[in-house]
Amino acid sequence: MFYRYPPSLTELINQLGKLPGVGPKTAARLAFHLLAAPEADAAGLAAAIGAARKSIGYCAICGSYTDTEVCPLCEDSERDATLLCVVEQPRDIISMERSRSFRGRYHVLNGVLSPMDGIGPDRLRMTELFQRLENGGIREVVVATNPSVEGEATAMYLAKKIKPMGIRVTRIAHGLPVGGDLEYADEATLSLALSGRHDL
Amino acid sequence: MFYRYPPSLTELINQLGKLPGVGPKTAARLAFHLLAAPEADAAGLAAAIGAARKSIGYCAICGSYTDTEVCPLCEDSERDATLLCVVEQPRDIISMERSRSFRGRYHVLNGVLSPMDGIGPDRLRMTELFQRLENGGIREVVVATNPSVEGEATAMYLAKKIKPMGIRVTRIAHGLPVGGDLEYADEATLSLALSGRHDL
Repeated sequence: MFYRYPPSLTELINQLGKLPGVGPKTAARLAFHLLAAPEADAAGLAAAIGAARKSIGYCAICGSYTDTEVCPLCEDSERDATLLCVVEQPRDIISMERSRSFRGRYHVLNGVLSPMDGIGPDRLRMTELFQRLENGGIREVVVATNPSVEGEATAMYLAKKIKPMGIRVTRIAHGLPVGGDLEYADEATLSLALSGRHDL
Repeated sequence: MFYRYPPSLTELINQLGKLPGVGPKTAARLAFHLLAAPEADAAGLAAAIGAARKSIGYCAICGSYTDTEVCPLCEDSERDATLLCVVEQPRDIISMERSRSFRGRYHVLNGVLSPMDGIGPDRLRMTELFQRLENGGIREVVVATNPSVEGEATAMYLAKKIKPMGIRVTRIAHGLPVGGDLEYADEATLSLALSGRHDL
């Protein structure tokens, strides 16, 4: 008879294996860790998953994660309400905030246009975005989707839709990362760095 | 005001960050995945952790994980009861079984001797091991602890204790892994491969 894990251990490994970047070997390592860890750690993780799913929903305005009706960022009157940054995912807001370079509001698309995957404008939070713009008061939309093919296409689509409304549409710059080395830069990044060059 | 995660999301990230090999960035990625994933996936993982912790205990004989009093391996009468393989962790049994080269029984030490960390023989399942040997019927103990300093020291310790009982003590071989390349082998492995050389 070949040795098998107890069913509940197999189930735990399978569930952990659904996490992004977690293959079968890592899933097994995590499962064994959870079995050997103090009871409070295992129970704490299980409870945290449930509590987060239960208490966190989407902000009624920007669509980011929040445990209140409207997220603290949308409620913050000190932020510039005339400047709106469009991002793909809620986590992108954290990256932007970490840079401490943007003091406006946000709008989460929940993805990017991807005809190959059947994701059209109706699958994204585009209607909500246009509604916010039609409500007035916004003078510039900064499109901060990722520098991927889909991210660029989505930026183009937004520019085409929003410019006629008389609102400025800008795109975050792409180029060499700070501390980056020409030798290790990929062609696409280098190409964007070149086309985005400016006078010194 | 600087943007903060909702407390329940922070808690989820903290709990995920306790997993081995999961740093703050990975923990955040996993947390966002769990928020965006189908409810069944998040609930399934939380439930699997609880179920595994509840149903899985230690085998009364070998000390491996099992959901029964005695694990299937220890109950399998077709396995050679005269041959006992000593491993550090329950997961090492899986590795051994995968090789399909060992048909005896196992004993889990739950670690290795490590005076630096204050781990002496009393902190490991040594008493249980010696008890099994004293019960008789075992003719050879294969020590399969890892080829680390502590693993080797533990193997030496076991040999010193078990040989006087008239039981053969062997050590799994160390050397170049199959498919390995001399050029990339570390000195310690190469040294073991040399000292373990055999006639052709």
